[in-house]
Amino acid sequence: MIKKLIDEIIRKDAPIVAGLDPMLSYVPECLKKEAFEKFGKTPEAVAEAIYAYNKGLIDAIADLVPAVKPQIAMYEQFGLPGLEAYLKTVKYAKEKGLIVIADVKRGDIGSTSAAYATAHLGKIDIEGNESEPFGSDFATVNPYLGTDGVKPFTDACNQFDKGIFVLVKTSNPSSGEFQDRLVDGRPLYEHVAEKVVEWGGASMDGDYSNVGAVVGATYPEQGEKLRKLMPYTYILVPGYGAQGGRGKDLKHFFNKDGLGAIVNSSRGIIAAYKQEAYAKFGDKGYAEAAREAVLAMRKDIRENI
Amino acid sequence: MIKKLIDEIIRKDAPIVAGLDPMLSYVPECLKKEAFEKFGKTPEAVAEAIYAYNKGLIDAIADLVPAVKPQIAMYEQFGLPGLEAYLKTVKYAKEKGLIVIADVKRGDIGSTSAAYATAHLGKIDIEGNESEPFGSDFATVNPYLGTDGVKPFTDACNQFDKGIFVLVKTSNPSSGEFQDRLVDGRPLYEHVAEKVVEWGGASMDGDYSNVGAVVGATYPEQGEKLRKLMPYTYILVPGYGAQGGRGKDLKHFFNKDGLGAIVNSSRGIIAAYKQEAYAKFGDKGYAEAAREAVLAMRKDIRENI
Repeated sequence: MIKKLIDEIIRKDAPIVAGLDPMLSYVPECLKKEAFEKFGKTPEAVAEAIYAYNKGLIDAIADLVPAVKPQIAMYEQFGLPGLEAYLKTVKYAKEKGLIVIADVKRGDIGSTSAAYATAHLGKIDIEGNESEPFGSDFATVNPYLGTDGVKPFTDACNQFDKGIFVLVKTSNPSSGEFQDRLVDGRPLYEHVAEKVVEWGGASMDGDYSNVGAVVGATYPEQGEKLRKLMPYTYILVPGYGAQGGRGKDLKHFFNKDGLGAIVNSSRGIIAAYKQEAYAKFGDKGYAEAAREAVLAMRKDIRENI
Repeated sequence: MIKKLIDEIIRKDAPIVAGLDPMLSYVPECLKKEAFEKFGKTPEAVAEAIYAYNKGLIDAIADLVPAVKPQIAMYEQFGLPGLEAYLKTVKYAKEKGLIVIADVKRGDIGSTSAAYATAHLGKIDIEGNESEPFGSDFATVNPYLGTDGVKPFTDACNQFDKGIFVLVKTSNPSSGEFQDRLVDGRPLYEHVAEKVVEWGGASMDGDYSNVGAVVGATYPEQGEKLRKLMPYTYILVPGYGAQGGRGKDLKHFFNKDGLGAIVNSSRGIIAAYKQEAYAKFGDKGYAEAAREAVLAMRKDIRENI
């Protein structure tokens, strides 16, 4: 699956993933109004509005970006209707030729991780009848429980040609609290990175492994070190834009050939219409604003890597 | 909320939580057969069978145990119908007076953790209209992202009188891979434990904090140390029974007054009918077998703590 993602990154000349994290405050008023009139101020209405919002975004950017990354928490908070909107979004994105990275950050003991891997990457076998629960292409995975919590995900990668991105160094301000602590003289995240390389060894797909890593754009120095430490690991880079990461921070996440990393922006793309720079589009023009924001992000990345 | 849990532990004289982790292979044939005849071999059928299974279990043990702990992965793997069965299970357990610990092991950057906290512990506010997405009493939380990933959960605890159990030392074989690594001469899980104490300081509810910890029964020595290190932290202890933890391993997870810990058993209770000791109940007697298994577990714990 990583090969397919890289092919699309090259074809679209954009190492960019658009984060579909529809906070209610991002959803344009025009879409909310329509849904509230139909369903009242209910989770069902929000789910309808979110899905309409995502469809508009996907239609506007599907030719520009290789992948989208829905953050499942933003849907889970609206209960079952929210998760239905999540599932419909995954399906719609795939119909439009996009690769879907499920930002689920799951991770548990072996048998439970196996169930999560089935949910997001695999197929469920009901006495010989198979179906796909959520059917993403990639999922993000939390490594705190160690190898036996990650292995079911790598098994799913190998069985279904899927991929994962394991949290190594996250983009948030307090990520260092545990991740940066020194173990044998080196930060914990480097030890996690070494395990990611080890876990990925049996999941090669072209020049890179289907087992990737998450490293935040907000920590460019660590990114440079980790890029070298994980030579065949693709890096998913969150934290660009609204969280503070800038184009010039990204250079060392990439290899010299311009590959090796894919940068996520969520708010900066999907809520671009709320920024002064794109205010002219108004809330009805949210999708065009998102398209412009992707083009600007592509330019920023091109100039810096 | 921890005070309510402790009151129920004392009233029922059982520091026991029953893990509702319905692997398809645990669901009694009689329930599967009925559901498959109605819906075919589909996720909808499994969801129906799982909910019937859980209802039977809850009816059989609600007077014996203070709490149940559904593992959401086991539902998520059946997609939306599975998650509907999860939600119905949470509601049914609460109707029967049980406290519900959502074993979701969520954790992300701040704004995303806030969405998870809303999903499982809080209420979603849709322009003034509030509703409860999943409505559990407790949730399990992964600490790998540090304070700003946990704080939204503690905020939800304070706002809605709920509780969390933060993963400190998990029960699985490879939990030591990162959790046991020495940081300043002490294992990482002790540093996490100190943070749990710090996070819990502002969420006291009686003698204990609404911020609890997960420590596996499979690591009794670490449990003893952690019990002392976290004086007002309630410990959720998985790993008893099928994973290898035994009654005599539990002693030091508890304080001298018999409080301070609650022990989970999943397979050992809900699939007791598959054990030789309870085979006489047959698959139709799965709920009675579960009841007997709870009584045996209570006896084992009483004799050992």
